[in-house]
Amino acid sequence: MSAGTPPAPGAQGVPAGLLAGGADGPGRLRDLTTIVLDALEDAPRARGGPLPAGGPGAVALSTRALCSPVLPAEGVGPEAALADVVRAVAEGAADPADPACVAHLHCPPLAVAVAAELAGAALNPSMDSWDQAPAAGVIEELTTAALARLVHPAAPAPDALITSGGTESNLVALLLARERAMPGPLRVVTGANAHHSVHRAAWMLGLPAPTVVACRDGVIDPDALDRALTGLAGAPLLVVATAGTTDEGRIDPLPEIARIAERHTARLHVDAAYGGPLLFSERLAPLLTGLERADSVTFDLHKLGWQPVAAGVLAVADAGMLTPLSLRADYLNADDDTEAGLPDLLGRSIRTTRRPDAVKMAVTFRALGRRGLGELVEHCVRTAHEFGEAVDARPALRRRPGGIGISTVLFRPAVADTLPEEAGDAVVAAVRRILLAEGRAVLGRAVAEDGDGRRRLWLKATLLHPNAATADLLPLLDLVTAAADRAVSEAQAAEGTQAPGAERLSP
Amino acid sequence: MSAGTPPAPGAQGVPAGLLAGGADGPGRLRDLTTIVLDALEDAPRARGGPLPAGGPGAVALSTRALCSPVLPAEGVGPEAALADVVRAVAEGAADPADPACVAHLHCPPLAVAVAAELAGAALNPSMDSWDQAPAAGVIEELTTAALARLVHPAAPAPDALITSGGTESNLVALLLARERAMPGPLRVVTGANAHHSVHRAAWMLGLPAPTVVACRDGVIDPDALDRALTGLAGAPLLVVATAGTTDEGRIDPLPEIARIAERHTARLHVDAAYGGPLLFSERLAPLLTGLERADSVTFDLHKLGWQPVAAGVLAVADAGMLTPLSLRADYLNADDDTEAGLPDLLGRSIRTTRRPDAVKMAVTFRALGRRGLGELVEHCVRTAHEFGEAVDARPALRRRPGGIGISTVLFRPAVADTLPEEAGDAVVAAVRRILLAEGRAVLGRAVAEDGDGRRRLWLKATLLHPNAATADLLPLLDLVTAAADRAVSEAQAAEGTQAPGAERLSP
Repeated sequence: MSAGTPPAPGAQGVPAGLLAGGADGPGRLRDLTTIVLDALEDAPRARGGPLPAGGPGAVALSTRALCSPVLPAEGVGPEAALADVVRAVAEGAADPADPACVAHLHCPPLAVAVAAELAGAALNPSMDSWDQAPAAGVIEELTTAALARLVHPAAPAPDALITSGGTESNLVALLLARERAMPGPLRVVTGANAHHSVHRAAWMLGLPAPTVVACRDGVIDPDALDRALTGLAGAPLLVVATAGTTDEGRIDPLPEIARIAERHTARLHVDAAYGGPLLFSERLAPLLTGLERADSVTFDLHKLGWQPVAAGVLAVADAGMLTPLSLRADYLNADDDTEAGLPDLLGRSIRTTRRPDAVKMAVTFRALGRRGLGELVEHCVRTAHEFGEAVDARPALRRRPGGIGISTVLFRPAVADTLPEEAGDAVVAAVRRILLAEGRAVLGRAVAEDGDGRRRLWLKATLLHPNAATADLLPLLDLVTAAADRAVSEAQAAEGTQAPGAERLSP
Repeated sequence: MSAGTPPAPGAQGVPAGLLAGGADGPGRLRDLTTIVLDALEDAPRARGGPLPAGGPGAVALSTRALCSPVLPAEGVGPEAALADVVRAVAEGAADPADPACVAHLHCPPLAVAVAAELAGAALNPSMDSWDQAPAAGVIEELTTAALARLVHPAAPAPDALITSGGTESNLVALLLARERAMPGPLRVVTGANAHHSVHRAAWMLGLPAPTVVACRDGVIDPDALDRALTGLAGAPLLVVATAGTTDEGRIDPLPEIARIAERHTARLHVDAAYGGPLLFSERLAPLLTGLERADSVTFDLHKLGWQPVAAGVLAVADAGMLTPLSLRADYLNADDDTEAGLPDLLGRSIRTTRRPDAVKMAVTFRALGRRGLGELVEHCVRTAHEFGEAVDARPALRRRPGGIGISTVLFRPAVADTLPEEAGDAVVAAVRRILLAEGRAVLGRAVAEDGDGRRRLWLKATLLHPNAATADLLPLLDLVTAAADRAVSEAQAAEGTQAPGAERLSP
């Protein structure tokens, strides 16, 4: 009956060697993970760059060739299926471990965290009851306690939940605020720089659309916030600020926002999905001063934390805030079981069955320590500043005036400035698409204020690579310059019949 | 600039060999996954059973010893951190690959799916934009198309989304119905047998609490449903039925429910998180007749699909139903990018950053084929029936009267029937806790109607092991009989001062 007893091979006609667990599971996994690692090793050469060349049409063709039909009547066996599908995913990846992959808050994961994921997947604990996750539950408790203490070091009873990412963290933060504000309705006030998930959460929860406060230089204008809150006086209020905006990496003025929120007896949530990990670095943590005054904080470790997705966190200043999530389901946390000492885990999430994402976080934290993590964050911030200086040194490029937000650099080819407004922006967009279609670089895009106060389109480099040297990043600048020249010629040739770069992406 | 160029080792003081990707990533992963596989191989012996003995207190102590402090100032290095934390998780696991682990819809994952997870984690595609997941997006499209066609074979334009599990699938189903019902409010009508996530979803979405319809023999009473819908006439209505209830594995009478819903112009959602995979088997699929008439269907592959969590699905009869999820976020799906041919993936989820869960599903589907998956489902159903017969053959046990729901068997020790009602239920609960505390078995519990119409507590065996023979499961019955005798003696000795079995679980 113990796990040491292997099931009879082929019992009742079902194949042996099927499972990841049990006596022969790890041996079987050794064979199969070798197939995966071989495919991962071969892929970069076959891909020939940070992403496959040819655009969506070409990638769809090659992927379908390896993976169709995806649900055949008869199987092809584990080895063939793994080799083909993993090859397709790897050869067709936008590889965040390539220094030219800088579009998004899309990090290259740490090897140690990925290895830890393998253990979680093989054991498959589910975090909704003790009897599905005896030890994994304890590890989650240790991990969330450490994160809670990191975010709210002086609070008497801070707590934190593991989520599927910033979007879920923001949703739960608004849900908790909504319940606290009953009979409500809660009014949410946020900056024009906030992530779309704040608006989506309000919509899902049946709340009035958030009031949007104007920004100055990419961050909330405190006077505008003050006026907005005054205008809503009497309603229960939640201010949502951002520490690390998606477009510019900017941090809202948290101490001032906390003061204003307090004056209006508004609650404060800070979306620090991007910026939160600055707390790991003693040198950079002061950038987040004021965060500790937030009632709740979104914090993500699949951005500046180098975890494979998912690794979201919602930290709260007081554990009592989580009460609305309490739930009784007899099969998971019957009263008599809880009284008899079985921990009740059901109120720790809006999900039920739930992955042991805390395990990879715990392994990473133990492996690197707070200092090691802080150094990786500092590396990204430093390379971003060096990258920004390199942009400034090139006449063919122009960096957006103003500082660099965390590790995000906005710039555009100078040639775009020589064109009429709309044509200039079209060239910027085309540069991104040309480099994507040619498989050379994955750059992001953002609309942001220029020095003259006008909003223009910029290329965005979000530098999350924890050990690429600045020198590894510089070829990106040559690629952009060359692509901009091509985009301009193409635009002239096409005489405006088509968005530049489009033909490369069409199937 | 290509992935083939390794970053300078130790560049700027940051350690080399850090990442899972890039030129040396797979090699590094080979070393680290070996540590994981060794720990997984050793753990069952150290654990000595399906879960560790000693209850929550003992598990907390041994886990803390290996994992504290979880966030030290200085790291201990990847090797030591992995070895310790994975050892803690594995030795402290409730291992679903052990045939004595039958409490929940908590499946032992397939080796091939776990190996595929490794690829997903290493490459870390995020499914919210093409430039983070070029090939993984195509694989998701193929996978959801196949699942959509499986659930709604005759619909002109069926579709499906990948979710984090049944709870998210039910939430999105209610959200889509709410939006369609605008200005609403939508009234949800569901059975007393529905999963708690239906109620939770209504609460989150700001909907009135669902109207609960009485059940007969564990399934919705169609007459009661008809009356409930009549009582709500005029309101936009959603009926939520269940195909595979959590407590009993029962399937609501779908054809009749579909007819009644249609007559009241109510929409129909079916939560088939447990039962959905019966569709893989030609022999068993007829049990789900009527499912194809549902507007939306929750379907889970981390139950009868043997995937590591998460592997949730929401299938819809018509792709147009998904329109309310459409969202524009300039950095992910700007209009000009979409016009230029970049696929827009943002409307495929309520999450933003999102794991490539479709990859492991695709690998599993290709490996086993529909036939192979169907055989595994049939195996579970067959062993459940044989297990039920074995219960019936033992005078010391009594199976709940009536049929077996999918692969769920409810039974209780006969000695519990000799005691007053409450004391009898207390013995049933104690048996479960004794076996948990001694590390011998993980049985579930459910309150369900007995032959005399009274609701009693039962032990629940949810048989999801795809290749344990029935003979591997029978020792569970001896364990239950012996534990029941001990529970009765302890209850008599304690003279009711404490719930039986409680002292074993307290720290």
